Amino acid sequence: MTATLLTNIGELTTNAGAPGDPCGTIRDAAVLIEDGVVAWAGPVVEASRAGGDIEVVDVGGRAVIPGFVDSHTHLVFGGDRADEFEARMAGTPYAAGGIRRTVDATRAAGDDELRARLAAFVAELHAQGTTTFEVKTGYGLTVDDEARLVRIAAEVTDEVTFLGAHVVPAEYADDRAGYVDLVCGPMLDAVAAHARWIDVFCERGAFTPAESERILTAGIDRGLQPRVHGNQLGHGEGVRLAVEFGAASVDHCTYLSEDDVAALAASSTVATLLPGVEFSTRQPYPDARRLLDAGVTVALASDCNPGSSFTSSMPLMIALAVREMGMTPAEAVWAATAGGARALHRDDVGHLGPGARADLVVLDAPTRVHLAYRPGVPLVDAVYRDGALMGS
Amino acid sequence: MTATLLTNIGELTTNAGAPGDPCGTIRDAAVLIEDGVVAWAGPVVEASRAGGDIEVVDVGGRAVIPGFVDSHTHLVFGGDRADEFEARMAGTPYAAGGIRRTVDATRAAGDDELRARLAAFVAELHAQGTTTFEVKTGYGLTVDDEARLVRIAAEVTDEVTFLGAHVVPAEYADDRAGYVDLVCGPMLDAVAAHARWIDVFCERGAFTPAESERILTAGIDRGLQPRVHGNQLGHGEGVRLAVEFGAASVDHCTYLSEDDVAALAASSTVATLLPGVEFSTRQPYPDARRLLDAGVTVALASDCNPGSSFTSSMPLMIALAVREMGMTPAEAVWAATAGGARALHRDDVGHLGPGARADLVVLDAPTRVHLAYRPGVPLVDAVYRDGALMGS
Ligand SMILES: [Zn+2]
Ligand SMILES: [Zn+2]
Repeated sequence: MTATLLTNIGELTTNAGAPGDPCGTIRDAAVLIEDGVVAWAGPVVEASRAGGDIEVVDVGGRAVIPGFVDSHTHLVFGGDRADEFEARMAGTPYAAGGIRRTVDATRAAGDDELRARLAAFVAELHAQGTTTFEVKTGYGLTVDDEARLVRIAAEVTDEVTFLGAHVVPAEYADDRAGYVDLVCGPMLDAVAAHARWIDVFCERGAFTPAESERILTAGIDRGLQPRVHGNQLGHGEGVRLAVEFGAASVDHCTYLSEDDVAALAASSTVATLLPGVEFSTRQPYPDARRLLDAGVTVALASDCNPGSSFTSSMPLMIALAVREMGMTPAEAVWAATAGGARALHRDDVGHLGPGARADLVVLDAPTRVHLAYRPGVPLVDAVYRDGALMGS
Repeated sequence: MTATLLTNIGELTTNAGAPGDPCGTIRDAAVLIEDGVVAWAGPVVEASRAGGDIEVVDVGGRAVIPGFVDSHTHLVFGGDRADEFEARMAGTPYAAGGIRRTVDATRAAGDDELRARLAAFVAELHAQGTTTFEVKTGYGLTVDDEARLVRIAAEVTDEVTFLGAHVVPAEYADDRAGYVDLVCGPMLDAVAAHARWIDVFCERGAFTPAESERILTAGIDRGLQPRVHGNQLGHGEGVRLAVEFGAASVDHCTYLSEDDVAALAASSTVATLLPGVEFSTRQPYPDARRLLDAGVTVALASDCNPGSSFTSSMPLMIALAVREMGMTPAEAVWAATAGGARALHRDDVGHLGPGARADLVVLDAPTRVHLAYRPGVPLVDAVYRDGALMGS
């Protein structure tokens, strides 16, 4: 058995907290890791009870938080759209149709190219403290291409989402029903073994509520669990649908009615906010404060994709949530860790209570507040995954 | 003589450009470095003219830009103000008086402590691609403390700014004139040998235009060159004063009248914009577009300080300038490199034309646009200073 004691932690965020401090903050703390799992976390002065043959790591008063859980990414794709970004910043509005450009580039890319790019993104995530991440398909949109995307994604994460319903591909522009049939039939057959989740982009310009219902139902029938892209570009039925289906999460939530907020508050569906999108499309940010005050569970994720949010930085999501969305630093850190875990129905990550995976980040800062207080500065000093120091 | 050829540069930003492309962009480029200086930059196909015994470095199609020139930082200080940041994000407005807390912590810190913290910040700057930076004093505010800050700053940069006129310290609250006398006399005597610049915080709550004039004049009489903090918290006389004094730069420029803009456009004074401040104080951003359209030279800098902008990230400044201030990615990159050099009256940095210092950044991206397109992501792949790879 291998054991490590991380000690002299200035501020430990366990997320094993009570109302009043959901972050479960412990100052002058230590964490005992055994066989890749948190065996104990508490004040340094009580750490002597952890005896035996253990490696002791003094983190010098730095803050430690759970590894980030990024519950929403689109990381298997070819090409990029820097030119489209530049045009948008010069005034061209964002439109979901740009997705088709990435579809073309992805179909043209070989498996090895996609795999190499994904590996580079995974390294980028780890370097920034993300230890659990979801990956969606959705840039293939043929049976064969979605099948290879789901396989490639499954090589790097357990949290694979089938998003055949990302956009109707150009070749089905005059046969939407035919494309929905394809998604609900042969495409689902080809991907279901490699995916955990079914997702649909329920938005004007993408899929209607009726189409979305059909697709989610077909996925659930194949054993997948539902999640929804909704209410990004305007008011719509995404939230209602997600709650009705008991989805783990509805993502974006930029435009919400009072009924939407009430429905979320009464449900177990997480509202996942993706401020990288609003940053990169210059749209108004979602109102996290309104959701939190209503009792909704909020997660933060990157939505990393080449069109609307080509960032994988969870620290930036936290800084934006605090600057733009009315979240406190503690709420934002919780949402980027425990919130993401809830949005993926995971109880083994996103916290550092006993039994949790020892996925954690040592910050080059004395508190988690510094993630918002020092925006843009790389503050990830060390990352542990399953108790092992990464990159060493 | 040591020589290095950086080749296979996908996109080279030389800033040795003409109207229409001030970035002086060269695709498929190479840079020849001899004795720490750029000897030649041009298309790869012409690089054969650079013969002889040279080390060749293939950067794999990545983009290369000049090292960032951060012309405005306050990096010699003790303590931090994370608690004040947290309170501000919860609704407490920003006030310049918070500076006094850092003054207390700085006075209480020993030289070695200040030196160690500064060294950590310098490492942070380098890791993020900043190869030239200015450092201001202004957290000592006694003759002895300002003298030691200026000495410690001069150990790490040639660009040291004396900012005794940062705020009136608490012990002079009832004797402003006495403090201005101190700054203009004994304090300047003690610091002038170690500083290049004299700066003053000309703002309601800090120093009046008349006080600012006295202080700048006294500094110039001692051989220092003027720069000004102005027009941050409201309309004021800072810009007028800076232009009248022929200051290298007036920094902040958040609130400008039409006369201010016209005066800047007709002058050689650079308008240095500090969007980290607006990000971290939740104030409205300065209008870079208005300045650029009027023909004003614009620089971007971090203002890194523990109160109003505790970030040292020039890539984030670029992303904010594009998202929030109407700059194109090319304009923002120019402002963060060549603009900063102009704001420091430097012609040896901020560009990669022949004769420039070989201070440059290899981006982990194919274009400079990615600095804004991929906000928050650490894209600095390698940093060269005086032709030497840093951290190697
Ligand atoms: Zn998405
Ligand atoms: Zn400043």
